[in-house]
Amino acid sequence: MNPPRGMRDFLPAEKARRERVLAVVRDRYRAHGFDEIETPVVEDYDRLHAGIGGDNEKLAFNVLKRGLDAAGIRAAADDATGVDTRALSDLGLRYDLTVPLARFYATHRAELPAVFRSIQMAPVWRAERPQKGRYRQFVQCDIDIIGDASGRAEAELLAASLDTLDALGLEGGSIRINDRRALDWMLDSFGFTAEERPGVLITIDKLDKIGPDGVVAELSGRGASAAAVDAFRAFLLRPQTREFRPYGEGQIRKALPDGAPDDIVAHLVAIGDAVGAARATTGEVLLGGVPLRFDPFLVRGMGYYTGTIFELAHPSVDYSLGGGGRYDGMIGRFLGQDVPAVGFSIGFERIVELLDSTEDASASAVVLVHDRDVAVADLVGLKASLIAGGTRVRLEQRTKNLKALLERAAADGYTAFATVSQGQTADDLQIKPLS
Amino acid sequence: MNPPRGMRDFLPAEKARRERVLAVVRDRYRAHGFDEIETPVVEDYDRLHAGIGGDNEKLAFNVLKRGLDAAGIRAAADDATGVDTRALSDLGLRYDLTVPLARFYATHRAELPAVFRSIQMAPVWRAERPQKGRYRQFVQCDIDIIGDASGRAEAELLAASLDTLDALGLEGGSIRINDRRALDWMLDSFGFTAEERPGVLITIDKLDKIGPDGVVAELSGRGASAAAVDAFRAFLLRPQTREFRPYGEGQIRKALPDGAPDDIVAHLVAIGDAVGAARATTGEVLLGGVPLRFDPFLVRGMGYYTGTIFELAHPSVDYSLGGGGRYDGMIGRFLGQDVPAVGFSIGFERIVELLDSTEDASASAVVLVHDRDVAVADLVGLKASLIAGGTRVRLEQRTKNLKALLERAAADGYTAFATVSQGQTADDLQIKPLS
Repeated sequence: MNPPRGMRDFLPAEKARRERVLAVVRDRYRAHGFDEIETPVVEDYDRLHAGIGGDNEKLAFNVLKRGLDAAGIRAAADDATGVDTRALSDLGLRYDLTVPLARFYATHRAELPAVFRSIQMAPVWRAERPQKGRYRQFVQCDIDIIGDASGRAEAELLAASLDTLDALGLEGGSIRINDRRALDWMLDSFGFTAEERPGVLITIDKLDKIGPDGVVAELSGRGASAAAVDAFRAFLLRPQTREFRPYGEGQIRKALPDGAPDDIVAHLVAIGDAVGAARATTGEVLLGGVPLRFDPFLVRGMGYYTGTIFELAHPSVDYSLGGGGRYDGMIGRFLGQDVPAVGFSIGFERIVELLDSTEDASASAVVLVHDRDVAVADLVGLKASLIAGGTRVRLEQRTKNLKALLERAAADGYTAFATVSQGQTADDLQIKPLS
Repeated sequence: MNPPRGMRDFLPAEKARRERVLAVVRDRYRAHGFDEIETPVVEDYDRLHAGIGGDNEKLAFNVLKRGLDAAGIRAAADDATGVDTRALSDLGLRYDLTVPLARFYATHRAELPAVFRSIQMAPVWRAERPQKGRYRQFVQCDIDIIGDASGRAEAELLAASLDTLDALGLEGGSIRINDRRALDWMLDSFGFTAEERPGVLITIDKLDKIGPDGVVAELSGRGASAAAVDAFRAFLLRPQTREFRPYGEGQIRKALPDGAPDDIVAHLVAIGDAVGAARATTGEVLLGGVPLRFDPFLVRGMGYYTGTIFELAHPSVDYSLGGGGRYDGMIGRFLGQDVPAVGFSIGFERIVELLDSTEDASASAVVLVHDRDVAVADLVGLKASLIAGGTRVRLEQRTKNLKALLERAAADGYTAFATVSQGQTADDLQIKPLS
């Protein structure tokens, strides 16, 4: 008897750890001026399947319509065209927090500030094949700024996220940054056509995995313009391409082909200056003062990104701990009017796994080990008097193996114990530390 | 463009209020030795439809199977027998937290303490007809004690819940209590048969709504044994039936027909003594020291209750703020072995509505109203320096109507503001209170 396939129960120690991480993230993002919101876990079927969710749309768990009759069900099945899910389902579990946010903003725009900074910390569901570290229900922690087209929005997101990582004990985080417009311009400059662009981006996205030679081979295999592939290859193999330099205009210009558009470069520089200024106040000075690294080959998968894109790196792991980007087109899909938006998603599940599992040891927590014959009123009264003094209390009836009982309590985060016999009063209770 | 029918979005102020209530409830229940757990929002279809959930099973949102083909769908539809939902659905959204808890306990029993005290605070879903105050997604806050058959468990639940209510600023709560075994015995003593009992209980459950005459009329209309109805009527109309007395053996015996079983009375008395002892430490002495009232006509709807049942009352409202009871049979349905269990569900949604919506005013929160031309780096650096000093900060670009902007910020919980012009430094920032 297990939870549904690919989903998890959280036992007390793990649940407490998750709640502690959520509390830190909430506290830090709130300090940075973000406001938490919540949407229902289901959204209307048509909104989830409007083409915005990319590949995740196919992974949605759909909710069966209530009150379907036999004729209605048969109408959904056609041997020639297959299954009409829309005839069977009117709702679905959300597969991300971005589509619900766009819907939320369209619903409530009049009630929200002109620049709206949202926090969402909530589960999402994807019917993926379960595998190690990949679950069908998992928590996403997103912050988004809607209504600000300037680099100030990116800087606020990144400063807040790095500060949050610090507060979780993961100091030393840094950001890989790029801009989809820089990518588009770069591919144009090599001679790829607009039609080739989406396929080329999918290939470039694999650079970390398959290396420069793998990327060039795959581009040739795709039948992309040979001259463009050659130009790209030459650029990719330049010695300075993977060379580290402190973040700033010099690095950005050297990392791109000559003649990169000034407005894109200025946008990236302004973000770096602002994140550097924010981080300077924390005393944490890394990577020449700005914990950013421009990566002209960073792609990020989602089709809805329109500008800056970023990923959060940490020296302790070789995978990303979060990421995001600008998606100025999406809110317009729901609102019928373009609104600039940029978001960052911190990798909650990965971060929880990185942190150690020790309970907050500062809190006092006492196990009262009582004999079987102690009156219930005495026991519950004793417990209440300790709680009133600020202590967490668990009652345990004495068992033959007291040692095992106490070890178990220590593992559950209890720090002290006392034995309780008949007639015991609060005054003569002897509380001893659990070692 | 709205959230799905019967479901709600929570805007920042409301979301913050909900999170504050959850934090208080979590903190108090943890102090009382309860441990929070979490299960997936979906459970296997067969578990949700095993006959344990009562009427709620019919209200479940079911999840469409992935990968159904046309033949599979047609097989679910039969004009004669109707729709076979089980052929279309393998999962469902939980409609309560009790069925998932029973499944969780069966899965993890070996990893849990002998007496397991759980907290669950999470949403549930019911496809009810939406109406004022009734939603299709709502949060339940349950505590349960599994593995303790004694009244100690009830006393711990009730003491913890009253303490939690106090901590939420709702002092003066009290508990209506009864025991299903007392009800059964009472109905036997009037002469109702075991077959009549479920129907009679449904009618008695309406006593508050339709009054004694209504109950008697409905029982007669049901065709219950006339002699039994007469005996019940005489008992119901005794002058002392609705008379208030301090909680204790005297009150319980006087409120029941003569000769009530000693073990049931002793169980109820022990719970009262223990809750009284716990509450005595808090200085809050009500109803003659024990904030309990025995109500021989309290029924509570769920079929799974086997012993004590209770409801939480508060002088400020005429509806219940929570309730629960003992359900010793249910865990056995999953485990194949009976395990005693008792639970209490605090009415989260009702409590959130009762509490006022003021933001925590002790925290400092500053709006930085900046001119358009202030450099992003200066702005974000200024923000970071205030955050580092423990302040919550929101950036706002100055608009023509500064007054409206500041009123909006005050409504959002900000307590102070400062204007920022080009060249502004942290040292000469003038922070003024928002009135």
